[in-house]
Amino acid sequence: MSDKVRLAPVGLGRWARVLARGAQRGDVIELASCFSRDEAKRRAFCEEFGIPRSAVTYEELLADPEVEGILITTPNDTHLPLILQALEAGKAVYTDKPIAHTLEDAVRIAEAVGDLGAVFAVGHSARRLAGCRVMKQWISDGRLGEVSLAEANFSNERGLELTPGTWRFYAAKSPGGSMIQLGVHHADNLQYLLGPVASVTAHARRLHTRAEVPDAVMAILEFASGALAHLGAGWASPGVYTLNLLGTKANLMYDLDFTHWDQSHLADDYSTLRSQAYGESERPVVELPRTDMFREQLEEFALAIRGQAEVEVGATEATHALAVVRAALESSERDGAAVTLDEVIEAAGGRHVTAR
Amino acid sequence: MSDKVRLAPVGLGRWARVLARGAQRGDVIELASCFSRDEAKRRAFCEEFGIPRSAVTYEELLADPEVEGILITTPNDTHLPLILQALEAGKAVYTDKPIAHTLEDAVRIAEAVGDLGAVFAVGHSARRLAGCRVMKQWISDGRLGEVSLAEANFSNERGLELTPGTWRFYAAKSPGGSMIQLGVHHADNLQYLLGPVASVTAHARRLHTRAEVPDAVMAILEFASGALAHLGAGWASPGVYTLNLLGTKANLMYDLDFTHWDQSHLADDYSTLRSQAYGESERPVVELPRTDMFREQLEEFALAIRGQAEVEVGATEATHALAVVRAALESSERDGAAVTLDEVIEAAGGRHVTAR
Repeated sequence: MSDKVRLAPVGLGRWARVLARGAQRGDVIELASCFSRDEAKRRAFCEEFGIPRSAVTYEELLADPEVEGILITTPNDTHLPLILQALEAGKAVYTDKPIAHTLEDAVRIAEAVGDLGAVFAVGHSARRLAGCRVMKQWISDGRLGEVSLAEANFSNERGLELTPGTWRFYAAKSPGGSMIQLGVHHADNLQYLLGPVASVTAHARRLHTRAEVPDAVMAILEFASGALAHLGAGWASPGVYTLNLLGTKANLMYDLDFTHWDQSHLADDYSTLRSQAYGESERPVVELPRTDMFREQLEEFALAIRGQAEVEVGATEATHALAVVRAALESSERDGAAVTLDEVIEAAGGRHVTAR
Repeated sequence: MSDKVRLAPVGLGRWARVLARGAQRGDVIELASCFSRDEAKRRAFCEEFGIPRSAVTYEELLADPEVEGILITTPNDTHLPLILQALEAGKAVYTDKPIAHTLEDAVRIAEAVGDLGAVFAVGHSARRLAGCRVMKQWISDGRLGEVSLAEANFSNERGLELTPGTWRFYAAKSPGGSMIQLGVHHADNLQYLLGPVASVTAHARRLHTRAEVPDAVMAILEFASGALAHLGAGWASPGVYTLNLLGTKANLMYDLDFTHWDQSHLADDYSTLRSQAYGESERPVVELPRTDMFREQLEEFALAIRGQAEVEVGATEATHALAVVRAALESSERDGAAVTLDEVIEAAGGRHVTAR
């Protein structure tokens, strides 16, 4: 028997495939089983990825002693029960972002993870893109000086194409629309780069989508450091993924062609980071190393199960990202008045988790 | 005697030179006189631009029957008295942006212009840049579809270099710092492109400047159309001038190297407009015609004096741009709560000028 870490995908749709391909690009992970309620999906998935067996019920999967951890890619509103059940069965859990569809669920997940001391990871992979990693390095090295303004946008045309057949169509299953599906990535990136967000001011509008959820969201994040960031998330335009930092010594501008996101070993090839030094208007390209965010986050999760790595984005980080989304929606309901992260986390039953 | 329109610069600093060079690139305007309280400045200015005479007092300039219009480039807080005096003397007036340092002054200027039926123009030149003109054309042609999100940033390092010797250092003379000096340009551009702003949500912070004014401002503008725009204006980083529109059919991304702004006949050479069509991630460059914003706005003003042109940016447009700045500062004082343009204009004694 190989010494690979044995994981099992749950929810065998498009995203499970993206992650399975990421896992199989390395030699740390073995996909040992899988689960979906749909038998045809199970059979096809096993065949595509050479998985030896699948489970007919979730309970059967969780009872399988061979399975060390599970990879959840089911709809956001199903995360809480699936995660709790798996944690209670002693399995390590990786879940796709957002950690849950509501902050209340996120807080319950975080509590369970804490109580059980479980290995738990959330797929906020975007911070692992080479551009984001290099930005973080430049900040740590002091090469940007003090960052006062940051600007992030993640938008695409999804809202124009949503139909009632998909769970993302519904406010109860995916409150926040483009903000919880796309904006939450930058909510994590920005806190990774600039530290904890103190409060959020935002407007969320439903303009051109037929879905129940907003497709035009703009937020201003105020950080504990005093810096401000703009976070835009739209669902009614061609795709955009940008992240710019304006510092007293230099600016950094990052632009990613999101269409290659799924093949994360190629994503850096379709991204550009430019720098602009004080007193200069030229913006030379910054050389980027090559990363593979999906493979790396899954391998980190797998090795953490064996005690050989630490999970970078766990329940706390993921809850803070979701709290930005929740605070933005709350602020929009209050006509833009600033809403603190503490306030929404506490209202969701959470402890004061943001260090200031 | 030539048939050129005879104008006179007032306040003979760096900006008066930029405008004088713009005027002299064409053959519509003759600089017939000029005024500054400083005799050495007057002499040097006359020599540099071949101006036949200067006035020792403002009253003398305004009494000169040869002078048809004046070009004001004095500090913002001096605009109101200089403009009123000139209008009462029967002169046409061009003033640099912002129209005034306070909305109260702007409203008084707008009323005087209306009462006297005077020719009055404000130097919101940025909307004349080829990139902005082409954006407007694409919107009018329906090529962008419906714009739901716009993102604009105008930032530079000025706040880090301000000393108590300059009027921009002081809150009483230049309230809003980077927002009134830089952001006001995009406040006009965005309303030119997307129609009237209904309300503004913003945070203004003084982070790294020694001056009394904010150097980090972020605002979310909500338009009467329902669209949202982000407007960032910072004074603590290398220079950035960007304007992006996200539409249901296409995106447009505009980027200008501001260091060539002063030579407005070259500015388009240092700007790039890219488009991104629905379903595409490529962003081909959009060919731009060449413009000369300073020359064009001054010639338009000059010809309007002779009844041969209409002023594009008058007191109403300039007041609306300043009202965005004022609403942003007011919103920041109210912790981000949305502030309507109507509200700040009315509070400044103005009539309800925004058509909805």
